[in-house]
Amino acid sequence: MAADGLKPAGPFSDAERAAVYRAIHERRDVRGQFLPDPIDDDLLMRLLGAAHAAPSVGLMQPWNFIVIRSDAVRQQVRAAFQAANDEARAMFPDEKQGLYAQLKLEGITEAPVNLCITCDRSRGGPVVLGRTHNRDTDLYSTACAVQNLWLAARAEGVGLGWVSILRDDDLRRILNLPDHVVPVAYLCLGHVRELYDQPELQARGWAGRHPLQAMIHNETWGD
Amino acid sequence: MAADGLKPAGPFSDAERAAVYRAIHERRDVRGQFLPDPIDDDLLMRLLGAAHAAPSVGLMQPWNFIVIRSDAVRQQVRAAFQAANDEARAMFPDEKQGLYAQLKLEGITEAPVNLCITCDRSRGGPVVLGRTHNRDTDLYSTACAVQNLWLAARAEGVGLGWVSILRDDDLRRILNLPDHVVPVAYLCLGHVRELYDQPELQARGWAGRHPLQAMIHNETWGD
Repeated sequence: MAADGLKPAGPFSDAERAAVYRAIHERRDVRGQFLPDPIDDDLLMRLLGAAHAAPSVGLMQPWNFIVIRSDAVRQQVRAAFQAANDEARAMFPDEKQGLYAQLKLEGITEAPVNLCITCDRSRGGPVVLGRTHNRDTDLYSTACAVQNLWLAARAEGVGLGWVSILRDDDLRRILNLPDHVVPVAYLCLGHVRELYDQPELQARGWAGRHPLQAMIHNETWGD
Repeated sequence: MAADGLKPAGPFSDAERAAVYRAIHERRDVRGQFLPDPIDDDLLMRLLGAAHAAPSVGLMQPWNFIVIRSDAVRQQVRAAFQAANDEARAMFPDEKQGLYAQLKLEGITEAPVNLCITCDRSRGGPVVLGRTHNRDTDLYSTACAVQNLWLAARAEGVGLGWVSILRDDDLRRILNLPDHVVPVAYLCLGHVRELYDQPELQARGWAGRHPLQAMIHNETWGD
């Protein structure tokens, strides 16, 4: 028998394993496919429960979840996106601005639920186990929570889009964030019936996929 | 029919959905349960493929994977961990140092494979779509890749432990990292037969779980 809280834990069945890989490989960043159907509370709590089951440095659980359904807040965030996106487009070389302008980069008002996942940098006190040599590990934990939620959403038939073209100050003002809380991810959530079969930026000719083999080094960098 | 590369994408079957949630909720940070059995190349490539399928800002794919199997490199990283961990323990109040010293916080030499997942801050050139207003979104993408790999590993019966108690300079020197490449996660990987049924830091009385409901705000912070 397992002792000390340990329990048997081998590989999943082939079917279970395939389902996990299916979620990983079919997950997409969604901008244009949201249906207006509401997301019910039980479903939303399963998604937030998946996020809350993420690993966190020193069990810090630094995240919070701001659930946004009101038109008023979504309209403010949409306006903040548009201001930031005008700045963003102008940063690209002239020959890319045309294609950039054609890309749909958010679904803030189409998605029935928006969600801001934040990181409280002060949680757990001044010294957190595992965070002693890299203060940013709390941000990494919060990103892991986003990914858990994203995969659970795919399995539930819910699309998720991450909107990163927002000025930090705008988001802080609209969502009334305290100084010690960082907005890590602003997400749009809604049921979907269709998804791209490859990343949308690839489908639209903005960027290509790198071959996996080219990303691997052995023993040390460059080897 | 779906147009423009879109294809039908509804919810998974109940069994598939349960498998995704099982991976999310049974995933653990492993330190002491690694078996010495090697991880074969096909399995390792499935895990790296899961990481490489992560979302990335502007399809930047900023990650690389340094696969470490040699005793020589693992021993150097182990020594770097021990030096950093002595510094770390001394940062805690006296009354917590006894418990801290009893915690097993890494399995670097027991795990047959170590893996450093890095982030190349220069990939994709000076302006990356979606990274125009927060330069750290590439680090968040890399953390999402870690989480994809972690969940795939759970489904494969492979345990994963994230070792964050390492000085940045030590890891850069041992792994020969260029200046523009940041080590985001140093991971230990090995087959496991048992896992904790709750986070190990909770089982050992170091920290407790926050209730999910306490993490949720509506519309704005504090509401």
